[in-house]
Amino acid sequence: MTKVAIILSGAGVFDGSEIYESVITLLRLDQLNVEVQCFAPDIPQMHVINHISGEEMDETRNVLIEAARICRGEIKSLEEAKVENFDALIIPGGFGAAKNLSDFAVKGSDACVQQDVLSFCHGMFNARKPVGLVCIAPAMAPLIFGDKVHYTIGNDTDTANTIEAMGGSHDNCAVNEIVVDDEYMLVTTPAYMLASRISEAAEGINQLVDKVVELSND
Amino acid sequence: MTKVAIILSGAGVFDGSEIYESVITLLRLDQLNVEVQCFAPDIPQMHVINHISGEEMDETRNVLIEAARICRGEIKSLEEAKVENFDALIIPGGFGAAKNLSDFAVKGSDACVQQDVLSFCHGMFNARKPVGLVCIAPAMAPLIFGDKVHYTIGNDTDTANTIEAMGGSHDNCAVNEIVVDDEYMLVTTPAYMLASRISEAAEGINQLVDKVVELSND
Repeated sequence: MTKVAIILSGAGVFDGSEIYESVITLLRLDQLNVEVQCFAPDIPQMHVINHISGEEMDETRNVLIEAARICRGEIKSLEEAKVENFDALIIPGGFGAAKNLSDFAVKGSDACVQQDVLSFCHGMFNARKPVGLVCIAPAMAPLIFGDKVHYTIGNDTDTANTIEAMGGSHDNCAVNEIVVDDEYMLVTTPAYMLASRISEAAEGINQLVDKVVELSND
Repeated sequence: MTKVAIILSGAGVFDGSEIYESVITLLRLDQLNVEVQCFAPDIPQMHVINHISGEEMDETRNVLIEAARICRGEIKSLEEAKVENFDALIIPGGFGAAKNLSDFAVKGSDACVQQDVLSFCHGMFNARKPVGLVCIAPAMAPLIFGDKVHYTIGNDTDTANTIEAMGGSHDNCAVNEIVVDDEYMLVTTPAYMLASRISEAAEGINQLVDKVVELSND
């Protein structure tokens, strides 16, 4: 049975994992009879955002504990993830990917990827196992895969240029499409970088999941 | 265009809306080209639960602000919801339905439904507009629809008996099926009262959504 690791970054688009993208990913994987294990780094969130006002709240929350809300508590600390136990990895988007899994949201092209995330992603890359990055998560692609990798975050030129300053090449992509880098076994899709409704995001994410699972079985 | 109101109760199965159920509901409605508006009562959560340990956290959170995480901030206070603006109502499950929208989780058959929830649900019922209740949310059915209504929470006898002590009749139902009370225009499905995986929950919820939308167009 194919087994896929998911890295979540909290629960909520403005300070954690985008919830629609995360659930659509998990639903599609389950419909394909793929076994899934969710992980998140056991670290404080960069921010806690009131999702109505958009303002920062005077609270601290833990990425792992909040991410557990999405997946009914079925989650482990990313430190425990072992590359040899998985056939593929998918990271949904949301600002959590750019605030907690990396600091791209505040550092731009000077961004770093969080240690546990980088270590697991490098492990998957070195083991030639496919990785799917959704929405803004591809901002981490150059830092994981290096200078030659291809990826998409949709068609926003400023964001694409900021990511390309770290390396790799951005390919424009529609919301219902995916970009596949066969060399690096990386699959990316814009999702809510472009989606105006949940069913649009689902079209691209379902394709990404299908492709990642297909590559993992090659 | 059909317009459906959704009442959320927080974000996370143990103290709010069950996130899988909520997102599956919203995805299916969007795939049917139905317009959606999410609401939640602007009240404190009964509990804040650490979704890994299952233990209560020493925090207070607001139902409306946390529910906003599910739907990317696109939510309004339930006080603002007007029956005349909607063709149907769906309430996903999760303990939030039994802790925040009602107090069924702690009061059992002595439960009350929260004032804004009861008022909007009564309004939909009186206007002969269909209502869908998912998972444990049907525990509110007798308090909204009275003594003659039929509903399901799956096949758990103790829970069914506790709800029946408030009124109405429980019908056993499989996870991939729905119970339809045509008289009261109420549709219910067990979802995570029975589901062992997300794709099972989706089978029943998709049927519920389809039926609610069909009834709203009759």
